[in-house]
Amino acid sequence: MSRTILVLGAGKSTSYLLDYLLKKSEEEKLLLTIGDLHPENIPTQFSSHPNCQVIALDILNDENRKRAIASASIVVSMLPPKLHIKIAEDCIHFKKHLVTASYVSNEIEALDKEAKKHGLVFMNEIGLDPGIDHMSAMEVIDRIREKGGKMLLFESFTGGLVAPESDSNLWNYKFTWNPRNVVMAGQGGAAKFIQEGTYKYIPYQKLFRRTEFLDVQGYGTFEAYANRDSLKYREAYGLQNALTLYRGTMRRVGFSKAWHMFVILGMTDDTYIVENSEGMSYREYVNLFLPYSPTDSVELKLRHYLKIDQDDIRWGKLLELNIFDSSKKIPLKRATPAQMLQYILEDSWTLQEDEKDMIVMYHKFGFEMHGRKQQIDANMVVLGENRTFTAMSKTVGLPVAMATLQILNGKINTPGVQIPISAEVYQPILSELKTYGMAFREYEVPYLGYNPDNVGG
Amino acid sequence: MSRTILVLGAGKSTSYLLDYLLKKSEEEKLLLTIGDLHPENIPTQFSSHPNCQVIALDILNDENRKRAIASASIVVSMLPPKLHIKIAEDCIHFKKHLVTASYVSNEIEALDKEAKKHGLVFMNEIGLDPGIDHMSAMEVIDRIREKGGKMLLFESFTGGLVAPESDSNLWNYKFTWNPRNVVMAGQGGAAKFIQEGTYKYIPYQKLFRRTEFLDVQGYGTFEAYANRDSLKYREAYGLQNALTLYRGTMRRVGFSKAWHMFVILGMTDDTYIVENSEGMSYREYVNLFLPYSPTDSVELKLRHYLKIDQDDIRWGKLLELNIFDSSKKIPLKRATPAQMLQYILEDSWTLQEDEKDMIVMYHKFGFEMHGRKQQIDANMVVLGENRTFTAMSKTVGLPVAMATLQILNGKINTPGVQIPISAEVYQPILSELKTYGMAFREYEVPYLGYNPDNVGG
Repeated sequence: MSRTILVLGAGKSTSYLLDYLLKKSEEEKLLLTIGDLHPENIPTQFSSHPNCQVIALDILNDENRKRAIASASIVVSMLPPKLHIKIAEDCIHFKKHLVTASYVSNEIEALDKEAKKHGLVFMNEIGLDPGIDHMSAMEVIDRIREKGGKMLLFESFTGGLVAPESDSNLWNYKFTWNPRNVVMAGQGGAAKFIQEGTYKYIPYQKLFRRTEFLDVQGYGTFEAYANRDSLKYREAYGLQNALTLYRGTMRRVGFSKAWHMFVILGMTDDTYIVENSEGMSYREYVNLFLPYSPTDSVELKLRHYLKIDQDDIRWGKLLELNIFDSSKKIPLKRATPAQMLQYILEDSWTLQEDEKDMIVMYHKFGFEMHGRKQQIDANMVVLGENRTFTAMSKTVGLPVAMATLQILNGKINTPGVQIPISAEVYQPILSELKTYGMAFREYEVPYLGYNPDNVGG
Repeated sequence: MSRTILVLGAGKSTSYLLDYLLKKSEEEKLLLTIGDLHPENIPTQFSSHPNCQVIALDILNDENRKRAIASASIVVSMLPPKLHIKIAEDCIHFKKHLVTASYVSNEIEALDKEAKKHGLVFMNEIGLDPGIDHMSAMEVIDRIREKGGKMLLFESFTGGLVAPESDSNLWNYKFTWNPRNVVMAGQGGAAKFIQEGTYKYIPYQKLFRRTEFLDVQGYGTFEAYANRDSLKYREAYGLQNALTLYRGTMRRVGFSKAWHMFVILGMTDDTYIVENSEGMSYREYVNLFLPYSPTDSVELKLRHYLKIDQDDIRWGKLLELNIFDSSKKIPLKRATPAQMLQYILEDSWTLQEDEKDMIVMYHKFGFEMHGRKQQIDANMVVLGENRTFTAMSKTVGLPVAMATLQILNGKINTPGVQIPISAEVYQPILSELKTYGMAFREYEVPYLGYNPDNVGG
């Protein structure tokens, strides 16, 4: 049997994935086939590698897709999630393992029985978040349980941020990943979680005002706002009886309170088209969301509307984005407020070629063991090298690459549609990630939970 | 040809409609057939009338529905809007006129050609809002145009409120119509309007903080928040060149700012189910939306969260609703936050049998005539008699009833799917409404527009 790995989609986030597999290709006797709609965009350092071949592939072309999948030993899809299902069906048909970094959709989940029947590993959610979060959390949770502990609290936070040395704006933020996801963050439903056994819901209009702070040794203080569904992995992690479950997104302190201004103004709305968006100035855009006045300036209207004092740092943050500039224009036709905001933000927040990003992940594990409540905090910081070899691409791509090789080599072999929560998966991968500098630091801290004195309501 | 009027759906809002038609039945030789799923709920004052017959009718039963429509001269549907289409299709088939108080759906609009071909009048939006608003606005707009005026500004506001004599709570509000519509008001997209030629958008999270005030002689001051789409009737009214178009909903002053608390807390959200909603106390419900604390009271957490001082009237409004009561329980299974809020509000805001409601409508018409900018303000106040004969039922039901009779008598005869914006429709109906005490008072006021000095931006 040939050892051909088919990687579908060679976007920005695949630099480390391709690099890893090609570096292993001699010793592991791998052939790498990269299928992409625009193969000309694949860096020559990969495409010119002797063990690499590149094919132009439109994934919606059934014949070409099936041919590519049929001739591979294992398939890795880095394509947008909605394209996975056709690939997964072909993988069932041609009996190929499949690896993705995407959330398990209902359609993919429905293939579980078929995958098991044919002994196929369909590994999903094995990037950063989801991915490293699953593995690093389950490694600690399993360890606590093995020692007889009972989980009380699990909180988990991830942030894709700018590295301290490239952190040069008042927001302490630059786009290091899909900007649209940042603009749309938190929309589509209230955030839901449990604190001390009580359900809590935060609507979008308060989401960015309900942050909690986190200290990361050597990197200072961060804040986190709640993810939409913190209960998503309650069953998968076996945390049905935990009193507190909370998942969040990390930002530098102050980002969320400032972002809240965009939410309240209505600038993150993606549900309608702005009339005459094309050619609109940044200033006119801002004025769309403010009351009409024949005399008052856009600046003063906004300050009054959001109750921003002159010495409020949020004011500096707004000025820094040039949002009151009447000469800067938005070229987008028939755009939503969210698309227009994204354009304005990209104008300021785009990572430069030599700038570095940073990934931060933070877990809290509260548990009771031998009658004593305890807590372990664990965190990991990963820095990028430049705009191509980013920490994001590293933390997403390497777990995918490692899992692919482990599956190809039969080390990971439990079949079925799965996410990386079993020791068979997380042990070898976490261990190998450490050799790439991706390690969690653990701290024993007092267990406070959210109810140190067990009082009140 | 028989003169049978088939009224489908005899809910709360049909008391005046049925009363009007039965009172006219002798002189106009009318037979009234009421088709309803629960005919036993129809008051005997109607069902026992010699010119009235009542039939049990499930509108989804094709055979029964077709039989009822085939034997009528004209059909009035007071059923929920989504049920209209089957009725309308039958009306085409059996060549019957149709009258509804509902918005024209795309499906109904698509029947325009067929209706015209058969000379059928399909009259829609002929209740209060939409209905009387269309007619009263077009009557003034047409008059201004006939005199050579050019429309600059049109604003229109309607409120379904409690009459001053029954206005006994701090919110100055009780439910006089479908409570769910009140809880859901403003959701589903940003409010959109034009002020002085500039598009303006207000997101839901600011909607209830962007009110404008309106004085109604003899009734004091009201406030209005923007409806979702003020541009909806721009073409229908011929207002493509007007600089200001704004439609809003009227409340007593202070209602909106207090309602905004529910919005910000997330209590009006109808997109998810609250875990364990059944049997939850009002207090526990409120606590779902507040940060966890082992010691702080729900009251203090809420006050702090919403920055409400102790002497803020909004605090009194909350207390009046008993929302901190831990003995009052919500019995709803698998309910959304919005459904639970509705339950709590109905506990306080239900109109008592002897209490009266009130309808207020307010239009502003700005125009230029003979080189001079002028403005006409027009308003109408209608008071209900009791919980059955409400102002809402009167203002919705009477225009429907009058239009039905006018169509039956061939006075309104322009065929097609339409709304009441032509003089053929509004003249006889507005004129007859006056005899029922529903008249607009007009005032010439200085035209200020939104830009009295034509300055600034």
